[in-house]
Amino acid sequence: MSKIITFGEIMLRLSPNNHQRFIQANNLDVVYGGGEANVAVSLAMFNQASYFVSKVPDHAIGQAAINHLKHYGVQTDYMALGGKRLGIYYLESGVSMRPSQVIYDRQNSAISEANVEDFDFEEIFKDATWFHWSGITPALSDAASNLVLKACQVAKKHNVTISVDLNYRKKLWSTKKAQKVMKSLMTYVDVCIGNEEDAKNILGYSHSSTDVSSGKLVMSDYKETLKKMVEDFDFKVAVTTLRESLSASHNKWHALMYDGKEFIESSEYDIIPIVDRVGAGDSFSAGFIYGMLNKDTMREAIEFATAASALKHTIKGDQNLVIVSEVEQLKNGDKSGRVKR
Amino acid sequence: MSKIITFGEIMLRLSPNNHQRFIQANNLDVVYGGGEANVAVSLAMFNQASYFVSKVPDHAIGQAAINHLKHYGVQTDYMALGGKRLGIYYLESGVSMRPSQVIYDRQNSAISEANVEDFDFEEIFKDATWFHWSGITPALSDAASNLVLKACQVAKKHNVTISVDLNYRKKLWSTKKAQKVMKSLMTYVDVCIGNEEDAKNILGYSHSSTDVSSGKLVMSDYKETLKKMVEDFDFKVAVTTLRESLSASHNKWHALMYDGKEFIESSEYDIIPIVDRVGAGDSFSAGFIYGMLNKDTMREAIEFATAASALKHTIKGDQNLVIVSEVEQLKNGDKSGRVKR
Amino acid sequence: MSKIITFGEIMLRLSPNNHQRFIQANNLDVVYGGGEANVAVSLAMFNQASYFVSKVPDHAIGQAAINHLKHYGVQTDYMALGGKRLGIYYLESGVSMRPSQVIYDRQNSAISEANVEDFDFEEIFKDATWFHWSGITPALSDAASNLVLKACQVAKKHNVTISVDLNYRKKLWSTKKAQKVMKSLMTYVDVCIGNEEDAKNILGYSHSSTDVSSGKLVMSDYKETLKKMVEDFDFKVAVTTLRESLSASHNKWHALMYDGKEFIESSEYDIIPIVDRVGAGDSFSAGFIYGMLNKDTMREAIEFATAASALKHTIKGDQNLVIVSEVEQLKNGDKSGRVKR
Amino acid sequence: MSKIITFGEIMLRLSPNNHQRFIQANNLDVVYGGGEANVAVSLAMFNQASYFVSKVPDHAIGQAAINHLKHYGVQTDYMALGGKRLGIYYLESGVSMRPSQVIYDRQNSAISEANVEDFDFEEIFKDATWFHWSGITPALSDAASNLVLKACQVAKKHNVTISVDLNYRKKLWSTKKAQKVMKSLMTYVDVCIGNEEDAKNILGYSHSSTDVSSGKLVMSDYKETLKKMVEDFDFKVAVTTLRESLSASHNKWHALMYDGKEFIESSEYDIIPIVDRVGAGDSFSAGFIYGMLNKDTMREAIEFATAASALKHTIKGDQNLVIVSEVEQLKNGDKSGRVKR
Amino acid sequence: MSKIITFGEIMLRLSPNNHQRFIQANNLDVVYGGGEANVAVSLAMFNQASYFVSKVPDHAIGQAAINHLKHYGVQTDYMALGGKRLGIYYLESGVSMRPSQVIYDRQNSAISEANVEDFDFEEIFKDATWFHWSGITPALSDAASNLVLKACQVAKKHNVTISVDLNYRKKLWSTKKAQKVMKSLMTYVDVCIGNEEDAKNILGYSHSSTDVSSGKLVMSDYKETLKKMVEDFDFKVAVTTLRESLSASHNKWHALMYDGKEFIESSEYDIIPIVDRVGAGDSFSAGFIYGMLNKDTMREAIEFATAASALKHTIKGDQNLVIVSEVEQLKNGDKSGRVKR
Amino acid sequence: MSKIITFGEIMLRLSPNNHQRFIQANNLDVVYGGGEANVAVSLAMFNQASYFVSKVPDHAIGQAAINHLKHYGVQTDYMALGGKRLGIYYLESGVSMRPSQVIYDRQNSAISEANVEDFDFEEIFKDATWFHWSGITPALSDAASNLVLKACQVAKKHNVTISVDLNYRKKLWSTKKAQKVMKSLMTYVDVCIGNEEDAKNILGYSHSSTDVSSGKLVMSDYKETLKKMVEDFDFKVAVTTLRESLSASHNKWHALMYDGKEFIESSEYDIIPIVDRVGAGDSFSAGFIYGMLNKDTMREAIEFATAASALKHTIKGDQNLVIVSEVEQLKNGDKSGRVKR
Repeated sequence: MSKIITFGEIMLRLSPNNHQRFIQANNLDVVYGGGEANVAVSLAMFNQASYFVSKVPDHAIGQAAINHLKHYGVQTDYMALGGKRLGIYYLESGVSMRPSQVIYDRQNSAISEANVEDFDFEEIFKDATWFHWSGITPALSDAASNLVLKACQVAKKHNVTISVDLNYRKKLWSTKKAQKVMKSLMTYVDVCIGNEEDAKNILGYSHSSTDVSSGKLVMSDYKETLKKMVEDFDFKVAVTTLRESLSASHNKWHALMYDGKEFIESSEYDIIPIVDRVGAGDSFSAGFIYGMLNKDTMREAIEFATAASALKHTIKGDQNLVIVSEVEQLKNGDKSGRVKR
Repeated sequence: MSKIITFGEIMLRLSPNNHQRFIQANNLDVVYGGGEANVAVSLAMFNQASYFVSKVPDHAIGQAAINHLKHYGVQTDYMALGGKRLGIYYLESGVSMRPSQVIYDRQNSAISEANVEDFDFEEIFKDATWFHWSGITPALSDAASNLVLKACQVAKKHNVTISVDLNYRKKLWSTKKAQKVMKSLMTYVDVCIGNEEDAKNILGYSHSSTDVSSGKLVMSDYKETLKKMVEDFDFKVAVTTLRESLSASHNKWHALMYDGKEFIESSEYDIIPIVDRVGAGDSFSAGFIYGMLNKDTMREAIEFATAASALKHTIKGDQNLVIVSEVEQLKNGDKSGRVKR
Repeated sequence: MSKIITFGEIMLRLSPNNHQRFIQANNLDVVYGGGEANVAVSLAMFNQASYFVSKVPDHAIGQAAINHLKHYGVQTDYMALGGKRLGIYYLESGVSMRPSQVIYDRQNSAISEANVEDFDFEEIFKDATWFHWSGITPALSDAASNLVLKACQVAKKHNVTISVDLNYRKKLWSTKKAQKVMKSLMTYVDVCIGNEEDAKNILGYSHSSTDVSSGKLVMSDYKETLKKMVEDFDFKVAVTTLRESLSASHNKWHALMYDGKEFIESSEYDIIPIVDRVGAGDSFSAGFIYGMLNKDTMREAIEFATAASALKHTIKGDQNLVIVSEVEQLKNGDKSGRVKR
Repeated sequence: MSKIITFGEIMLRLSPNNHQRFIQANNLDVVYGGGEANVAVSLAMFNQASYFVSKVPDHAIGQAAINHLKHYGVQTDYMALGGKRLGIYYLESGVSMRPSQVIYDRQNSAISEANVEDFDFEEIFKDATWFHWSGITPALSDAASNLVLKACQVAKKHNVTISVDLNYRKKLWSTKKAQKVMKSLMTYVDVCIGNEEDAKNILGYSHSSTDVSSGKLVMSDYKETLKKMVEDFDFKVAVTTLRESLSASHNKWHALMYDGKEFIESSEYDIIPIVDRVGAGDSFSAGFIYGMLNKDTMREAIEFATAASALKHTIKGDQNLVIVSEVEQLKNGDKSGRVKR
Repeated sequence: MSKIITFGEIMLRLSPNNHQRFIQANNLDVVYGGGEANVAVSLAMFNQASYFVSKVPDHAIGQAAINHLKHYGVQTDYMALGGKRLGIYYLESGVSMRPSQVIYDRQNSAISEANVEDFDFEEIFKDATWFHWSGITPALSDAASNLVLKACQVAKKHNVTISVDLNYRKKLWSTKKAQKVMKSLMTYVDVCIGNEEDAKNILGYSHSSTDVSSGKLVMSDYKETLKKMVEDFDFKVAVTTLRESLSASHNKWHALMYDGKEFIESSEYDIIPIVDRVGAGDSFSAGFIYGMLNKDTMREAIEFATAASALKHTIKGDQNLVIVSEVEQLKNGDKSGRVKR
Repeated sequence: MSKIITFGEIMLRLSPNNHQRFIQANNLDVVYGGGEANVAVSLAMFNQASYFVSKVPDHAIGQAAINHLKHYGVQTDYMALGGKRLGIYYLESGVSMRPSQVIYDRQNSAISEANVEDFDFEEIFKDATWFHWSGITPALSDAASNLVLKACQVAKKHNVTISVDLNYRKKLWSTKKAQKVMKSLMTYVDVCIGNEEDAKNILGYSHSSTDVSSGKLVMSDYKETLKKMVEDFDFKVAVTTLRESLSASHNKWHALMYDGKEFIESSEYDIIPIVDRVGAGDSFSAGFIYGMLNKDTMREAIEFATAASALKHTIKGDQNLVIVSEVEQLKNGDKSGRVKR
């Protein structure tokens, strides 16, 4: 089993159920999630030795976040305890033409104020195979940004493969700041996952003619972007998911990658209805990491990742609670949804 | 802020959740609603000074109905307390080809037995801009019918614009009685909202060739009806929503209006899946009133009303719990349902 | 009212709600169901004198299963009490491309270990009109298989019509064993309900070219199979439901029958979204039995059964909780799902 | 098995859960209950051939009430369908010093407007052993009062034992009207169940010095009242439950009877906490009827009834969902509440 | 109706239900509360013209807090919108010997960063009768402390009576800082509500021999403290609640006041079980304010406040959702908890 | 951190909530528990390196049981996958004088049919400190009994301390069989936990005069039994919990131990109300193991265990979800239940 390290923030997610709006809700469903934590859970569900590294407050809510990860098999040995608070995000799930709404309340979270004493990266990356982080983590604070840099350096020293999900969050930083920080971090990255918008905001690419709100995708633009990413940053592979948002309940979903040699475009999934699309990108990252570690070809890896992340849309919560055999079955073409007895 | 008065009945709505049938239900979801109350809530959500006027019993359930309105910002200063009971309706929400089912238990409600001493209409319509009621209210009882007449008279004295949603309810009165009562009330009305069936049952129009159960709409018939309504009753504007019921989960929805000069047909929305279609007509009325009070053109008003009422289908309960910016966004064409962060 | 006897197993069904996976669930919805019990409930909802005969443990959970049947009007006078346990099945409902998952835990159930002393078949079939069982019951155990044989013999003595739903369950027996047992039982059967797979596994037919996982149906194969069934076993009628599984949330559904003279193909229903497809076959059986007992033509019977079972897909639980007038309305073409007030 | 007839009203009961107040509740728990229906359910749970006779509306909510009774084994063969509505009562359960609150909405219910054509009393009382009704039923309306009279007459013709639970409801009628109607009905009664307040309001007795709000009981007064009841109306037995209300969560409970020869005072139960005290009196009636039909002595009957009704306080809903062996165990002195494995 | 102003923080309260611990909870109950907001709700339930003044973020969660207040009739005209976040507190309700646990996450809340431009105090206190705040508000931040000072000054200018609930929160400030700030604010206060610990921490009094964890109360100490408070700060009245904590489920509760002339000790309530004790102090403050405004004597005022706050313990959430007649009934001695029909 | 091994069965526990009876329940709360699993969870909550060893089916329900353990930090590295089914137990929680009811359905569970190939005991006990099992495990089957023997032998080889909770289950085996099997296993045991009934049924002691259903405890009998246990089997310590069952909601609880030198009787706890008493004995075992490993004196160990297990009664589910500091606080005498802020 490969030891896989993820590093980032885990938040309390609060969401009304049964299509309720915030203003109607007398109670809120609880899960704990965040980009890298979601990747860690999905990899643990795939039976990988998956670790999530972060800092949470030393109280019952911080502990509950850790226990949520343990529940799904994530290793939490390297979690630091302390700091002021656990970040929160409120999610109101959309339906039909009503969009989902996310309200962040993550400032001053424990991880955003953590420092290098909180983590023994030498120990963490000992015997590790893979390190995954997302563009959200350095956006949290300068301290967090430094931690990512430090982690990348130690990981590289241990010959660990590094993947990043660009994941631009405009509420956390400006494109200017993002580009400054991220471009230097890209030098450590082997596998880059990111969509058009991320490439524009984080890498500064601007040639795309795709208008995401129209739901139309221009493949040639995507190819050009991926090619440029690989060339500019010497990534082993660059990959993007492609979402056509027909409504909050109906999306089309596939992926495209470039490994310096060829473009591979995955099968496309027509997802209707969508149960919960939060974390779909993270589930793709997890599937892609799993695929690169366990599959013979890049095509198989991207097909596994796409099928896995298509399934994520049918699952409540941030995390992709499916196992390998379920992904394989869908990847192998059975979309009929017939009852498995 | 315009002071807007609505007058009618508010009922306790009891509905099984999670697609359950009545026969399965061990508990029932509770909201309080009714045609005019729903209009009042939607207008309050649009930040209008919205009043609901009615009578409810002086006990904890009557009070809970009032508090439900307060929750969403409706002014309840003119509510009368007393009478025997709060009307009830049972709603079983349909899905796919199974229709929703409504069972009314509203006889002898407080408002149906209210009289002119319960309301100080001079005070109520002082400084008011708009008065909205529906064809359900005079159908409740002769007493209620008299109250509507009285309210219209005082409203007119105060130069208040009057809108009506025809809303024929066959369980409450015959077409003969309805026509007799409503035709005389129409003389006070400025804005008339009503569909083909309402026009037939309440105004006695009979030329329509549309068969509602077929889901097909014949636009020329609708235009003819609206034109006749405006001509016969001297309405400033007559407007109708147009619903194509493909199933209990899938409808198409738009609107058509005539203001004596031109027909304006709104954009059409394809709504799938439907969360709760009860109150869609009321949300249209609220949107249209808001539009006429706040928009520059009739086209903008009808587009606002149509977008607002399309959104209503995605929201649980009788009432359209959306704010102006959400309606504007959909009205401006973003139907992609992408997550708002 | 016709006295209709059904005989088989009733199980506790445990299922997570709100699209949750087993691994997420802190509580499970409870119904009690099983092939023949589901038929009995549906017939009771159609106001037939419907009896379910089985054995359940003499404790509170066994009693709760009986009370569940009573709730929907099933007669339980002939239920035997005793034995070790009530069978269980776990159901995780699928959505979109994620399939539903069923885990059986039914070994050593009371009915599988019942014997002939538990049931007074002479009393049971006195004045009875119809006897329905499914291929699941003889698959439970040799003892259960003998009970079915005995029941068929007594039923025939009383001139009771016998119907069977072939319902092959690969977890319960081999095709070899199934064919040996079932072929001899077929000599008692008048009405045979079964799909292509059942015909192959239970009757040993092998000429079908339909691939169920593709969702494509080859009608000529189905016709050939039905014809052969009628010819080989002298059934009065053989009938099959035809499901096109586009996803776990979207199916097409109709039926085909052959009565030795002609093929009748029913109307087709496009079901989206599906609430719960478990028990759809049972609801078809119930509708077909009702139709044969109460309708003038075979076409009317199959149309009633198809409409009834289409509606089942919109209802939570194993059982088709609809009444005759609701089926008639759909059968007569109203698929619009408009609110019934 | 004795055939036992009960006759009265069944209502929809709506109650907030988890100690919520009406004003907080977004959903309400549902059961269907009423004095005589509760007695019928308890007797059915005791394996008696228990019938409930009433009239409910011919719609899904009326049917749900019937199915609720069927669930617990009550025979509903004689239920009439029709009329305007099902009566409702709202219950907010109290706790500690906060009292439970009941709001009735039962006017114009189907049973209150039923008439003699709705029921074939000859058929109903054929082979019957016992007839039970309560003072609530004649209080509903003159029509209902006449139905009770008619039922008593036919019951007497068939030599059926008649029991009444006096159950005065001040919201339904005046003491004057109650005394006029009830005193004449008493001539048919064999077993009279009623407390001090009932005796005062319904039979006009006034010598009691017990102040119910003080929670103190004066046994000599109770004895005098029971004695007078037996003497005045020639009852075979008169019995009363004795409740000491220390708080909404803590009551003491026992019973006292007089059969013309001796007073028997039952064991006392200290009930803390109370889960739901509604229907305690009805559960006592059911226990007493069961006891008189199945026990050897009056002492055993009253002890069975007292233990049964003590248990009722621990059960949610109107009805006493316990079986005979559970009552026997408590009656035999095991109040330890130890886990039964 | 008296216009009553309250000023402070409102937070989102998140609590597991059904005795669950945080670590078990998959969903959390939601209310919005805080010391002064709770007082405002209780006064609104008593039909007073009650205003809550604060600042909440201009997003759906901030709005939901406002709507929660509106629901119970609180006037929110003076609420400011803006700032970063809504404060949160997590509450795990205890039972028996397991204590309730509160985790605060309130730093950087909108109100703690509000400033004088957010509120038009002249407008707010125009025609006002009473101003209530608690020691929590100045503890939030220096900015908040200044706002309280400003509010007191304007209130005094308008001859508004000022009450304070001392409410020391050790997580928010040191006793040193608290004493410095609060002592100067005391000069504006007319009515001071606070217990022994508050007096020690906020006013610096140290002579108490009561050990709160022992559950024993030494009345002479309390009297001495109250007397000193009145003398030192020239309060019109000083009052304290007295809680004996026997367990998380069982408390005794009463109150003691001194008005410069006499000590009045209220009746004592034995509360078992406790549903939710959070906000009991606030409900006392509201009751006392109501009493001083509406009752003839101080004894009546304190008895009203004590009965009101005893009832609070039986109600879920932060707020005392009882009406005047319910308090009066308990105050008049009816603790029997008998059902009110 | 000590490595602690527990070995036994984990079952799916299904229980109605909100005081419902089985016959009322439409859904059931889910936890996974069993004697040794409960000990393992409690020790993991105390931050011990706690392992649970068992076998569960290789399907989603078996996996969910494992994930439940992981959630609370239990190590599941040695869990075997396979076998037919997961055992089940149904729990209806009692209240007041209504006892809790347990229905077992555990035959043919995976662990009961496991064999020696499923577990590598050498690996399991490598570096282990403690081994805990209960009398339930050898009672499951001869195979399970052999596994316990094998485990004890390997544990002893590794100098692991062994504790047993006698836990006689009459549904699983006769006293004769129990005594035969258990007496020989006792030779490996260092610490024996068991009550009077266990001692009688499993060790064959018969001198007790305590009648458990009376709720009275005769301490001299208990002392005699413990003394004999230590003498006969050379235990280092024998300990028993002492429960006085006043009702299902009210128990008194303490413990008594003998270590060959002295008797130590713990403090007594008065527990009212009880939330869930299942697993109280297991929580005592966990507390006692923790105490023996981490405390300086036997008195501290037994006081820790008693306080821990008293707290268990306030927590839903089988397991004691408290941490060390919470136990210490209660052990140190704070039973006031005051809110911890």
